[in-house]
Amino acid sequence: MNRAAFALVAVSLVAGIIAVRRSASGQTDGAAAPIYGVKIPAGYRDWTLISVARIGPPFNDMRAKLGNAVASRAFREGTIPFPDGTIIARLAWNQVASEENNKAFSTILQQRLKPDELQKLLSESFVAGPATNVQFMVKDSTRYAASGGWGFAQFTDGKPDGEAVHEGCFPCHALAKDRDLIFTHYSH
Amino acid sequence: MNRAAFALVAVSLVAGIIAVRRSASGQTDGAAAPIYGVKIPAGYRDWTLISVARIGPPFNDMRAKLGNAVASRAFREGTIPFPDGTIIARLAWNQVASEENNKAFSTILQQRLKPDELQKLLSESFVAGPATNVQFMVKDSTRYAASGGWGFAQFTDGKPDGEAVHEGCFPCHALAKDRDLIFTHYSH
Repeated sequence: MNRAAFALVAVSLVAGIIAVRRSASGQTDGAAAPIYGVKIPAGYRDWTLISVARIGPPFNDMRAKLGNAVASRAFREGTIPFPDGTIIARLAWNQVASEENNKAFSTILQQRLKPDELQKLLSESFVAGPATNVQFMVKDSTRYAASGGWGFAQFTDGKPDGEAVHEGCFPCHALAKDRDLIFTHYSH
Repeated sequence: MNRAAFALVAVSLVAGIIAVRRSASGQTDGAAAPIYGVKIPAGYRDWTLISVARIGPPFNDMRAKLGNAVASRAFREGTIPFPDGTIIARLAWNQVASEENNKAFSTILQQRLKPDELQKLLSESFVAGPATNVQFMVKDSTRYAASGGWGFAQFTDGKPDGEAVHEGCFPCHALAKDRDLIFTHYSH
């Protein structure tokens, strides 16, 4: 093993120790959301992308589902029910038009599309704007036995939303009972 | 350190060694794309989500940008130009309607929305369907000096697309010259 390799292994070792310390709670120090007591999981923003989706008006958002290691393995292997330890994050952003993207589309597509076709493409092309809120589903079949094994949470600007919001999570996700309450499919 | 912690560190150590072996090439064994010689980078599907977007008709796709560790750090810190070693992946899928999602929306939103509002929401709500293709941008300011420091690649079903496709990458991305040829912004 050369020096660079040894250094990388050493860094991995330190990262491992940090991972151990984090895994003691697996959650950040912020406030817990009501009903299920879920906190924002540490490091969720770097989790694996499960899939993307969008919801029409009046929401007009674009969304991404991320999964921790347990979640992404289960999604890829089609494991139903999801194992305890699964955490899924749903991020969402208001869709906004991008002037700079549309300029580029106009430049490169004006030879390939008719003016009305180009206009239609531009009017229906969007990027992610401001974040709306972040949701989590945490699988713990013992702790959350009364809600199909899942705990639910929604945070806006890093703060948990109220109890009324959280009361709506389980009844809706229960509609996906054949897939352990998860609507999202993994996108290859 | 208890046994579980020790096991985790040991696993991290092994992962570190694997990472070292992979980093020797950083690319999979598949075919290289034309012009820039980029191969599909190992492990890209687990990289950090940078942002999402969608493009209107006739493309009608939803897309996600993922970044390796160098890329995601640079995006978060607003580093321009992006450092050598940056790799950005663009995944894209045809948007498709989800019957099961729409059933759930109808159930939970029928009290909140008028019938025509609900219909509009359903008709503009989509999930990711079949993948279209995957693109990569690799920053290497020496190797790719002639194309702004970036190498470009597109793969369909795991196979590199032709030279004509790759000839279009640089002229379009050059339109984003103020942002080191990158259109995408990081979504928090």
